[in-house]
Amino acid sequence: MFSGWFARPTTVNHGHASKSFLHDFLDEMQAENIKHHLRKFTRLPHLAGSQQNLDLAKQIRAEWMEFGLDSVELVPYDMLLSYPNKTNPNYISIVDHLGNEIFNTSLAEPVPEGYEDVTDIVPPYSAFSAKGQPEDELVYVNYGRTEDFFKLERELGINCSGKIVIARYGKIFRGNKVKNAMLAGAKGIVLFSDPADYCADGVEPYPDGWNLPGGGAQRGNVLNLNGAGDPLTPGYPAKEYTYRSSLEDAVGLPKIPVHPIGYHDAVHLLHKVRMNIHTNNQVTRIYNVIGWIRGAVEPDRYVILGGHRDAWVFGGIDPVSGAAVVHESVRAAGKLMKKGWRPRRTLIFASWDAEEFGLLGSTEWAEDHARVLQERAVAYINADSAIEGMYTLRVDCTPSLHTLVYDITKKVSSPEDGEEGMTLYQSWHKRDNSTERDAPWISKLGSGSDFEAYFIRLGIASGRARYTKNRKTEHYSSYPVYHSVYETYEIVERFYDPSFRRLEAVARVRGGLIFSLADSPVLPLDCVEYAMSLTKYANSIYQLALKHPAAMEQYSVSFDSLFSAVENFTVAARDFHQRLDQLDTSNALAVRMVNDQLMYLERAFTDPLGLPGRPFYRHIIFAPSSHNKYAGESFPGIYDALFDIENAVDPQKAWDEVKRQISIAAFTVNTAAETLRPVVS
Amino acid sequence: MFSGWFARPTTVNHGHASKSFLHDFLDEMQAENIKHHLRKFTRLPHLAGSQQNLDLAKQIRAEWMEFGLDSVELVPYDMLLSYPNKTNPNYISIVDHLGNEIFNTSLAEPVPEGYEDVTDIVPPYSAFSAKGQPEDELVYVNYGRTEDFFKLERELGINCSGKIVIARYGKIFRGNKVKNAMLAGAKGIVLFSDPADYCADGVEPYPDGWNLPGGGAQRGNVLNLNGAGDPLTPGYPAKEYTYRSSLEDAVGLPKIPVHPIGYHDAVHLLHKVRMNIHTNNQVTRIYNVIGWIRGAVEPDRYVILGGHRDAWVFGGIDPVSGAAVVHESVRAAGKLMKKGWRPRRTLIFASWDAEEFGLLGSTEWAEDHARVLQERAVAYINADSAIEGMYTLRVDCTPSLHTLVYDITKKVSSPEDGEEGMTLYQSWHKRDNSTERDAPWISKLGSGSDFEAYFIRLGIASGRARYTKNRKTEHYSSYPVYHSVYETYEIVERFYDPSFRRLEAVARVRGGLIFSLADSPVLPLDCVEYAMSLTKYANSIYQLALKHPAAMEQYSVSFDSLFSAVENFTVAARDFHQRLDQLDTSNALAVRMVNDQLMYLERAFTDPLGLPGRPFYRHIIFAPSSHNKYAGESFPGIYDALFDIENAVDPQKAWDEVKRQISIAAFTVNTAAETLRPVVS
Repeated sequence: MFSGWFARPTTVNHGHASKSFLHDFLDEMQAENIKHHLRKFTRLPHLAGSQQNLDLAKQIRAEWMEFGLDSVELVPYDMLLSYPNKTNPNYISIVDHLGNEIFNTSLAEPVPEGYEDVTDIVPPYSAFSAKGQPEDELVYVNYGRTEDFFKLERELGINCSGKIVIARYGKIFRGNKVKNAMLAGAKGIVLFSDPADYCADGVEPYPDGWNLPGGGAQRGNVLNLNGAGDPLTPGYPAKEYTYRSSLEDAVGLPKIPVHPIGYHDAVHLLHKVRMNIHTNNQVTRIYNVIGWIRGAVEPDRYVILGGHRDAWVFGGIDPVSGAAVVHESVRAAGKLMKKGWRPRRTLIFASWDAEEFGLLGSTEWAEDHARVLQERAVAYINADSAIEGMYTLRVDCTPSLHTLVYDITKKVSSPEDGEEGMTLYQSWHKRDNSTERDAPWISKLGSGSDFEAYFIRLGIASGRARYTKNRKTEHYSSYPVYHSVYETYEIVERFYDPSFRRLEAVARVRGGLIFSLADSPVLPLDCVEYAMSLTKYANSIYQLALKHPAAMEQYSVSFDSLFSAVENFTVAARDFHQRLDQLDTSNALAVRMVNDQLMYLERAFTDPLGLPGRPFYRHIIFAPSSHNKYAGESFPGIYDALFDIENAVDPQKAWDEVKRQISIAAFTVNTAAETLRPVVS
Repeated sequence: MFSGWFARPTTVNHGHASKSFLHDFLDEMQAENIKHHLRKFTRLPHLAGSQQNLDLAKQIRAEWMEFGLDSVELVPYDMLLSYPNKTNPNYISIVDHLGNEIFNTSLAEPVPEGYEDVTDIVPPYSAFSAKGQPEDELVYVNYGRTEDFFKLERELGINCSGKIVIARYGKIFRGNKVKNAMLAGAKGIVLFSDPADYCADGVEPYPDGWNLPGGGAQRGNVLNLNGAGDPLTPGYPAKEYTYRSSLEDAVGLPKIPVHPIGYHDAVHLLHKVRMNIHTNNQVTRIYNVIGWIRGAVEPDRYVILGGHRDAWVFGGIDPVSGAAVVHESVRAAGKLMKKGWRPRRTLIFASWDAEEFGLLGSTEWAEDHARVLQERAVAYINADSAIEGMYTLRVDCTPSLHTLVYDITKKVSSPEDGEEGMTLYQSWHKRDNSTERDAPWISKLGSGSDFEAYFIRLGIASGRARYTKNRKTEHYSSYPVYHSVYETYEIVERFYDPSFRRLEAVARVRGGLIFSLADSPVLPLDCVEYAMSLTKYANSIYQLALKHPAAMEQYSVSFDSLFSAVENFTVAARDFHQRLDQLDTSNALAVRMVNDQLMYLERAFTDPLGLPGRPFYRHIIFAPSSHNKYAGESFPGIYDALFDIENAVDPQKAWDEVKRQISIAAFTVNTAAETLRPVVS
């Protein structure tokens, strides 16, 4: 079915005039500068809502102005955050039969060398945990996935109701674990970092290597927001005048206590335990920094580079490796402006706050400006952690960006020792070839970072790029020190990227993307790539359904409408690009019209009614699985309807829902095809 | 508060080049032609879903092609309609204590002279009634409004539960009466036309005058769709492949039998009655006719003139007086094209089907093309019945169209005898001056016709115009023969508009609006008028809340954020129009950018989350009241939250909802202001 397609040579039009500036822009971004930015922004903890993070916001604003942006503003919101009680710490105890606490978990991680005098390191906690001191036996629930609870209940006959459960981190988003524990009736949940998931083979714990020490633990929020942003103001920005719901009506808050511990503590907990959780929810002011470069020709078209600034502690990797890269991109753009350059379209740079509390700063800004973004935003490039491994590039993006990503990586050098003269594309291709065609692997966007509201709610073409581990051989979750106090400047400088050339390469990829999107006369988006991806996704969701051949027959479930819609889209996309080849690029209105079609293509895949039960996830082609926020699923409505369908209480109803979702997907793809056809019937 | 504003001389830019063509276009539309179209389209009944209405669609397609449109297509949908059972008629009986039927209501209306041989006249019925033969005493519930049921239950101590109720037509949409009856627990509802509401003083019943004869009755659907379109496919077009919900899950169907009768029958029903209702719901194919004129400069900008074609019987007034006007506009446009004219933007002409069954044809087409309409539609002008009285013009439209409406009516002559040399504006002004400023009265859009999906769901600037009665002195509901078999060609020709100059005037108003919207280089939309209207609405909703001063105090209810938002909008609108005065109209991209701002202003007032419980009503400034679909309310979210608040079970919760709605309204107005500001921060 795919033959012929993959050999197609693709190119996108970058426009001649700006090509030399693209080269200048990429060259301007330098490893040494990124190293300097990373060092500067990781000296102190800068938790969302803290004075340090406000200070950092002001510093960034000042430096972006100095670099030469047209304007930079701090944009505050007042939203629900969550902090440990400073005088009444959280911990887990083992209690004896008299209720005496005979062992308590650590109240903090051992502080790494050089940071002994730092105050305001928030201890490991699960943000937005309920308060409480439940006490009971502990039930081990593996990763706390839906299938783990099914296995416990159905195969092992273990009932979690009324118990405290302990789940290891990894595989799925921690908020999904907490939700599953609540659904199973647990009255508390302990999360721990298992060495099997947080230590790479043959690597020493930090500071001698980059593995997680036994005393380290993973912070993180445990919300189930499904894209709602601030839990008190779903759908609307958390401004001063905004109505706030009560805590009882808030979106996504867990109803049970949750707490994370390290593996040194975890080995002790084989007894009856007591959780002591005193974490407070409080409305807190946070600050996004938003910088603008006005477009010279189409100021009302926006290209956004955004990444978060807030960190659980120092944020050496998450997020400052990314924020340092954004900073360098802003500096380079400012440098070019001093040489007389100004992009065709408007560039927006964002330093988001409170990402760690549920993508809050970015979501509130998206809510605040939803209308103009919907009308004017061309693309959103995300800039969270720029590195999570030492192997090669990783890109997740919308299919229409595939070709541009390949083009840009061909203009960037490989950062790897021994690969002098090789492009990043070649190095990446060699290390991570796609199983489907002869090109580097690019994945789907899931969630878990600030692109979520822009891509999944608003339907703005989005992408992200970072340096990563070898996904075929390195099986630990995330990177070992994730969200621990050991995410320092030094871990990057000593282990992840001593030359800072990997971060430089990521800077050039992210920077090259926004440059081309902002400056090419015709938008460098490839609709035929979208068509190819849709064909692939339709086939794979069909294969998933085919696991139930008898039911498919019994309930007359057909994917014909979806395949037909994908074919319609494929024809429309091919015809569109053929017409594009004939475009008179000297006709400003004609160029604007095709650019509008390109810009609004991603929008066409969204549905204001949202996915079932998830009104803020509006993208019909891509959304996180209901069972794991981190995993991006294609045709998520159909996927969720098929998930665990053999356990459905009412199979007729369950298969009706599958059919309804197929119909919605087919309609959405057909309607997207319509947007690419000639604008008059 | 308003002083100064109303004296402002407003003009909107029509562009010089097309002015002479506007004049030609208006002149081209002639009374004699409209008369001819009306005669042609009213010979036979043409109920939605009938062969006759398909034949009529084909005829219209053929004539529109002949007139010179670029393309005309029939667009079918398969949707739930409702028809009486031909072999088992509906009627109401009086039964004696043995259950014998001692009186039955008529099975049909007496057919008017000249139509005796016509077959396929559908008898009066309530489309989508439940089937059933309930039997009980009859309780008279006046108009069946919320307040009527309250009065019965609370003041008169009459419980409707388990009873059959009888309500007179008028004041509110019949579907709301049925819903109220269901909420009161009634097991059936009879609707009747009271002479007090359907006969004008001193006027004879048809055929000697234009009043409703005693044997006439009002057909109509009794759905509560709240904008959902086809009850089986809410939110999605009813195409062949579309998933259809079961009848149990359908949107808006009444659960009780409903039947309409005339006043001759009604006087008999003072006893125990039996309803005999056998109406069938069935999925039926319907056809919209869609015609296109490709825009010369901006083909991707659409101006729509749409009105329905289906009629309950002959449709002499509803809808053919409107459809004849559309036909004449198409003919005139075709004539101009033959002279070399082509509009700057694309013109779309629509002949909708199945309006009478719940605005179904127009809503499904809006659902089918929601994405492109959202991106490309500049305005929608509705063309239902062009006449409902003999007094003066009536216009309901979005505030941004006020100025254009006034401008156009100044270019049209008064159709009234004895007003030679007077413009339509002058005649209208004299007869219906606004209470708020010295200009003719223009009202808000409610619902009840095909603009609903375009305006309230999609946020496309919309308006309607027709000839009407004297609203200060003529108090009957609608026009007397509404939805009866007596809506013939002859009633228009003999009574409503013998010279057809009133319909000609309406044709020129509707035609002038679409002409100017499609052809003016800068869109003739007035944001300052919107600001003035918002100020007025904010004041009036505040006055409504002030009826509860103690509660406002107790629950700290403030409208400050709304007033502040309206002020922000007012400043932004004024500044926008000032910048517009400086616009370099020779810069094609600059013109496009401001036009985009003008086009998307109405969109900015919509919220994808919709109004509470009404997901397809997305306009935050205008929507029908929850209590009467016909009445357009401003700030409907706040209005509904305040409705009947003194009867709230939980006042704290009820006032919290008021506060939440104020916050949403303020945010929406602020965000609309943002769309008018310079496009870069």
